[in-house]
Amino acid sequence: MVRIELSIDLQYEVAPPGADFIFNIHGAHTRCQVIRSEQLDISQPLLPQIFTDPVSHNRYLRLSAAAGPLKVGYRAVVDLHHHLCAPELIAETPVARLPPEALGYIYPSRYCQSDLMGALVMREFGHLPQGHARVVAIQNWVRQHVRFEGNTTTSATSAMDTLTEGRGVCRDFAHLMIALCRALNIPARFATGIDFGADPALGPTDFHAYVEVFLGGRWYIFDPSGTAIPMGFVRFGTGRDAADVSFATIFGSVQSQPPVIHVQALLDGQGLCEMPRHRTEAISTDAPAHWG
Amino acid sequence: MVRIELSIDLQYEVAPPGADFIFNIHGAHTRCQVIRSEQLDISQPLLPQIFTDPVSHNRYLRLSAAAGPLKVGYRAVVDLHHHLCAPELIAETPVARLPPEALGYIYPSRYCQSDLMGALVMREFGHLPQGHARVVAIQNWVRQHVRFEGNTTTSATSAMDTLTEGRGVCRDFAHLMIALCRALNIPARFATGIDFGADPALGPTDFHAYVEVFLGGRWYIFDPSGTAIPMGFVRFGTGRDAADVSFATIFGSVQSQPPVIHVQALLDGQGLCEMPRHRTEAISTDAPAHWG
Amino acid sequence: MVRIELSIDLQYEVAPPGADFIFNIHGAHTRCQVIRSEQLDISQPLLPQIFTDPVSHNRYLRLSAAAGPLKVGYRAVVDLHHHLCAPELIAETPVARLPPEALGYIYPSRYCQSDLMGALVMREFGHLPQGHARVVAIQNWVRQHVRFEGNTTTSATSAMDTLTEGRGVCRDFAHLMIALCRALNIPARFATGIDFGADPALGPTDFHAYVEVFLGGRWYIFDPSGTAIPMGFVRFGTGRDAADVSFATIFGSVQSQPPVIHVQALLDGQGLCEMPRHRTEAISTDAPAHWG
Amino acid sequence: MVRIELSIDLQYEVAPPGADFIFNIHGAHTRCQVIRSEQLDISQPLLPQIFTDPVSHNRYLRLSAAAGPLKVGYRAVVDLHHHLCAPELIAETPVARLPPEALGYIYPSRYCQSDLMGALVMREFGHLPQGHARVVAIQNWVRQHVRFEGNTTTSATSAMDTLTEGRGVCRDFAHLMIALCRALNIPARFATGIDFGADPALGPTDFHAYVEVFLGGRWYIFDPSGTAIPMGFVRFGTGRDAADVSFATIFGSVQSQPPVIHVQALLDGQGLCEMPRHRTEAISTDAPAHWG
Repeated sequence: MVRIELSIDLQYEVAPPGADFIFNIHGAHTRCQVIRSEQLDISQPLLPQIFTDPVSHNRYLRLSAAAGPLKVGYRAVVDLHHHLCAPELIAETPVARLPPEALGYIYPSRYCQSDLMGALVMREFGHLPQGHARVVAIQNWVRQHVRFEGNTTTSATSAMDTLTEGRGVCRDFAHLMIALCRALNIPARFATGIDFGADPALGPTDFHAYVEVFLGGRWYIFDPSGTAIPMGFVRFGTGRDAADVSFATIFGSVQSQPPVIHVQALLDGQGLCEMPRHRTEAISTDAPAHWG
Repeated sequence: MVRIELSIDLQYEVAPPGADFIFNIHGAHTRCQVIRSEQLDISQPLLPQIFTDPVSHNRYLRLSAAAGPLKVGYRAVVDLHHHLCAPELIAETPVARLPPEALGYIYPSRYCQSDLMGALVMREFGHLPQGHARVVAIQNWVRQHVRFEGNTTTSATSAMDTLTEGRGVCRDFAHLMIALCRALNIPARFATGIDFGADPALGPTDFHAYVEVFLGGRWYIFDPSGTAIPMGFVRFGTGRDAADVSFATIFGSVQSQPPVIHVQALLDGQGLCEMPRHRTEAISTDAPAHWG
Repeated sequence: MVRIELSIDLQYEVAPPGADFIFNIHGAHTRCQVIRSEQLDISQPLLPQIFTDPVSHNRYLRLSAAAGPLKVGYRAVVDLHHHLCAPELIAETPVARLPPEALGYIYPSRYCQSDLMGALVMREFGHLPQGHARVVAIQNWVRQHVRFEGNTTTSATSAMDTLTEGRGVCRDFAHLMIALCRALNIPARFATGIDFGADPALGPTDFHAYVEVFLGGRWYIFDPSGTAIPMGFVRFGTGRDAADVSFATIFGSVQSQPPVIHVQALLDGQGLCEMPRHRTEAISTDAPAHWG
Repeated sequence: MVRIELSIDLQYEVAPPGADFIFNIHGAHTRCQVIRSEQLDISQPLLPQIFTDPVSHNRYLRLSAAAGPLKVGYRAVVDLHHHLCAPELIAETPVARLPPEALGYIYPSRYCQSDLMGALVMREFGHLPQGHARVVAIQNWVRQHVRFEGNTTTSATSAMDTLTEGRGVCRDFAHLMIALCRALNIPARFATGIDFGADPALGPTDFHAYVEVFLGGRWYIFDPSGTAIPMGFVRFGTGRDAADVSFATIFGSVQSQPPVIHVQALLDGQGLCEMPRHRTEAISTDAPAHWG
């Protein structure tokens, strides 16, 4: 078990006549991710609307803020119970046996135009044996073809753009890997959290985007940008791509400060908690079951 | 807005070879009940399973405890946003227009044998004009026919028993009121929380059972035992009757200590929070909508 | 595969000013029960409301009928794909591993007061090895203690009543068997359909009530009254007991004719369809999965 | 009320070793669309899997077909109960009050890149008063800028492509209109059915794609290609765009014949049914409620 403590502090200056926000910064309640404690602080006296999507379990927070400063703080302690599996035991699931909740993730989406990548994936990955190793091959291919470089892409950048430009940030690596998986009828989705374990030289702790791929009946975590340690990922949201799970969607005229984020792993006195580290096993924090 | 701080401390001694527990002690996430902060502490190193029912929003916690002592602590700060309405404006909903999520609550259940009370309700309430006032008449009738008396009933006591015996605790008042409403095709459900504002002479702060009745398109709160202040109720669970929403269902041999519960209303510095008090308006903390 | 053709014709005379009806006579869409064709005919020019419960998959039909005659006809051809399993391979599921959708079915309900049968079941079945055979033992016990006798019970008759009176119809057999299973923490639910294969000497083809028990991760069919052939059961509804899944719930003053029901198994030219017959294997037509 | 009779006949030649199909050709069960009768015929002896999405109500049919010919036939009689409203009474819904089930439809998707159209929509429609008339203005703009022309676009054509190329079929008109609405934060979704009332000169009866826009608390129908009569639309599926609701998604090597589709409006002897015709009122066949 891994125990993560995190805090997120967001700060905005809202112009008249006010603005609407939709945040996705709560840890998801899942079978493998237990929120031990959490706290939400909002500097304006607002009625927050909190919605849990019954399918994705994403938790959305909607606010109608008045003009003036707005601070939103979230802190939580979260226990992560990882399912680990030897990669060579993990098969792909044929389309005929995919559960409905995975099927939607083989179709193209705004930033993952998998329908345009059929020839590419057949050439690069079509000859490989099916299974977890083929998805690792896709991840490696993305890492070889994309260079991590901040401030080179925007919120409009798609997997096709990244394929052409060959650079981007975690979001772009994720979009491209997802598109390639889907082009092979392997369900893949976009996941968000915090870049636990990232090299401080890359900048302050930030939000993170990574990938979950449906293999062997579960969603397994992949971190195509390779910048963080998956065992430390607290999941905020999953969706088709970044269009579904922005940390903050803002409607109105607003000036934003950079988010201030802290994350650390906690140990306990009983030896139950371990420190996140890179693993050779495949890691999953999700299953189709319903306790969670 | 009312802000409630609560803590629940449960203590058990589990006999070998261990026992399973299902708790319903988390505050429900609803549109009108915002959990500002919460924390769960479990003395044994267990993986808790937490399940949110997609229909009722009840949150269940399942543990498989080892033999030995077990402590479960829950504390939370919860904001309650009450919908208030003048009672004379609140109509009953005809069966033909009940939404599906309310329909199930006109049928009899284990402790609310409404199917046996048709003649009684026609005689006592059939002539009254339909609407909120008729439900108040039912509540008053229950108060006149049942005497609050601890330790006189058991977990097997049903509304029919209470009708005969004329005494009981909050759970029994609730079951009888529910059965009478359903016999008139008025959806009514069992709700659980803490007896905020109860007279300390009645004993230490305890769990509480009360009633929600579907009127005018919403669920309105009634407190038939009249022992507490509804504006201070944090909702844990709703269900057909006590069979659905026990605070703790225990499978195995276990010795229980009485729960230690604290609850208080908090004020803030901005004048946003008010103290719970008895109101003449009808109070609702739920609506059929889905933000929540 | 078994292919069933069925027709149901219901006839009412509705007194002024009209009446509301809620029917549950549509075949459920489940993973194992494919509706090949179906047709609904209503003699009055009404807008029927049809609601599919997302959890049970029960399909409810609500009508607000005008005064005068009302005929409701339903006909369908349904393919049943049975999951068969050797009974000795089927284990009980411990409470700690029950999925949430099964958990609700260990609690007592209106007609299945399992909470009152703890001592009885420990005495009669507590010493038996856990598994499918224990549930068969419960079914046999019910058959030994209850005599099939029409017109001796009413819609208010509960499992406790049946235990005392020792007679009843399929509904009463089902309620008692369910209550006994739940008292052992074995999830059991009430299911409705048509009495395929019943002895014509018992009267014309009628609606039927039977039992589904959650064992080995699936719901298995039991027919405690033993009057029909389970392989021919088209499922209309499942619920806690008869309160959830009446064929018709009527609100208003209505005279009813006995239902006219026809049911038969069809063969095809390809040898795909077989005739329903009594089997030694355990039979299931449901699973927790979501296609269906 | 409008009563539609329809039949769809699909014919394929499946190459070895077989292929998987996912169809969306069943009429959706909604509050306003009542399936009176329906029938599904499959020429191979297969177990069809039918899945109803609990959120969209789309019904998907999955088959694993053997090599050889495959015919799939669907026929149904469907009653459509239209909600009509004077357009000038229909307002846009502010983002702060959108229900969660509509929120997802303001985000960009594969074929509707609304995030790239912000400047365009502010210039063209930003100055117009909010409400139904603004959406009509968007529809008219699409009709002025796109020419209906068959066989000029492919399954990869997106709204951005259509904006550039200025021609396409119903699918392309729909994608562009949806993208423009979303760029104004007006929820819009892709809907599929049959082109009832289309000019026979345009070719045989075919599948059809149109648009539903969330206004005034409901989804209203728009037919941007203007080729058919919306009152006759039986809804098969709704989704973000064509990626969600293809009539047939095929995995494997398959030769397809053109679909053979028949659709007609039926009258009854009681004067209850009317013929579909163009209306000046806004038309909706959906509401956020849950009977349906």
